[in-house]
Amino acid sequence: MSAPTLLHYVLDPYSRLIRLMCAEYGFDVELKDVKPWRREEEFLAINPAAETPVLQAEGKLAIVGISAVMMFIEENTETGLPLLPRNVVERAETRRLLDWALFKFSDDVSRYILEEKFVKNDMKGQTPDTNVLRVARLNRAEHLGYFDYLLSARKWLAGEDLTLADFALAAQISSLDYLSEMPWDDFPEVKEWYQRLKSRPAFRTLLTDRVLGMPASKTYADLDF
Amino acid sequence: MSAPTLLHYVLDPYSRLIRLMCAEYGFDVELKDVKPWRREEEFLAINPAAETPVLQAEGKLAIVGISAVMMFIEENTETGLPLLPRNVVERAETRRLLDWALFKFSDDVSRYILEEKFVKNDMKGQTPDTNVLRVARLNRAEHLGYFDYLLSARKWLAGEDLTLADFALAAQISSLDYLSEMPWDDFPEVKEWYQRLKSRPAFRTLLTDRVLGMPASKTYADLDF
Repeated sequence: MSAPTLLHYVLDPYSRLIRLMCAEYGFDVELKDVKPWRREEEFLAINPAAETPVLQAEGKLAIVGISAVMMFIEENTETGLPLLPRNVVERAETRRLLDWALFKFSDDVSRYILEEKFVKNDMKGQTPDTNVLRVARLNRAEHLGYFDYLLSARKWLAGEDLTLADFALAAQISSLDYLSEMPWDDFPEVKEWYQRLKSRPAFRTLLTDRVLGMPASKTYADLDF
Repeated sequence: MSAPTLLHYVLDPYSRLIRLMCAEYGFDVELKDVKPWRREEEFLAINPAAETPVLQAEGKLAIVGISAVMMFIEENTETGLPLLPRNVVERAETRRLLDWALFKFSDDVSRYILEEKFVKNDMKGQTPDTNVLRVARLNRAEHLGYFDYLLSARKWLAGEDLTLADFALAAQISSLDYLSEMPWDDFPEVKEWYQRLKSRPAFRTLLTDRVLGMPASKTYADLDF
C-alpha cells in the first residue's frame, strides 16, 4: 500500500503541524502542493471549505480539515509517546492551548500576515495592506507575550511534556519566521523554547522548505539564531 | 461529590453545545452565568482567552475552552450512543463538520451577529454596526446553503447518525434563531433537520432560556415553526 498523500502548501501552518506530527511519529506521507485560495474546482470538490490540510488515502477516503487529519494521525499511530497526553488535566490543558494556537493565534495573527505577505504575492497585482499588517503585529505582541509568560514557568507549552500544543504553535511561528515576522528578541522564553523544538529531527523537513521567489528569513533555518 | 459548574452565558453557541451534550448524556452540571466580554479579572484568571465555556470541577481543576470541555465530557461519559462515531470515515466527517460549525460558521457569521445584537446591548451606549450585520448575513446565506445541500442527501449532518456536528451547528443556529436571525424558509432542509433536533428531550433546557430585556423570536421555542 502506498503512503497517503497530504494536500498542503509550503507555508500553511496547519499542514506544517501535520508534517511535524508525521515526522515525529514516523507516519509516512507524500506531499502534494495545492493553492486553496485560488478556489479551483478540483480542490473545492474535495474540500468545499477550500482549506488545507487534506489527507488522501488509497481508494476514495479523504480526511478533510485540521482536526480530522490531526486526530486521524494521532489515533492511527502506535507510539509510546503520545503527543496528546493521557492524564485528564494535561489532556485538557493541551486542548486549551491547541485551540489557542490553531484558531485564536491563527485568526488574530498568522492568517492576516500570510494573506498579506504570501497569498497576495501569488495573486498577481495585489499588494499587502499595511493597516492589516499593523493590526496583526499588535495582536502578535499580545499573544507572544502570553506564551512567553507561560514558558517562563513551564518546560513545554502545556507542562513538563512535549504535546500537540507545542507543535501547533511552532508550526504557526515557523511560517511567520520564514516571512521575517518573528520579533525573537522581545520574547526570550519563546525563542529558547523554539530553539529546543527546532533542533528535533522532526523539524528538519520544514527547515529546507523554500517558496519560489521568496527567500526565507536569515533566522529561518539557523539552529542558533 | 457535587456536580461540576459550567461557566457560560445564555446565548453562547459553544456553551449551548456543551449543554446539549450534557442533557443528551445525562451529565449533570450546574450553570453559572458569566460575561466574558467584560474582561473581569476574576474570569481572566481562569481563562486568559476570555472565552466560555469553562467547566469547574471540585478542587482546583478547571477545563477551559470548547475543545477541552467538549472532549472531557465525551471521554468521561459512559454511553452506548457516542456522539463522536467510532468508525474512521464517520469520525473524520464528524470532525470536519465540527470544525466548520465551531470555527468557520462561528467566525464568519454568528460571532458578528452576537457581537452586534447581543454583546453591544450589554455594553451600554453601543449600537449595532449595520455594515457588519450585512456582511455576516451574506456569509450566513453561503454557509446555510452548503448545509442545506448536505442535508438534502443525509439524515444527519455527518451521515446516518446524530453526531457532535449536529449539536454544534444546532447550538450556533439556536442563538441566531433567538435573535430572529434565521431565514428558515430559504433553507427547507436545514429547517426540517432543526425541527427534528428541537423535538429531542436534550433541546428542552435551551428553549426556556431568556435574556433579560431581549425577548426570543416567535420561532425560538415553537416546535412547529
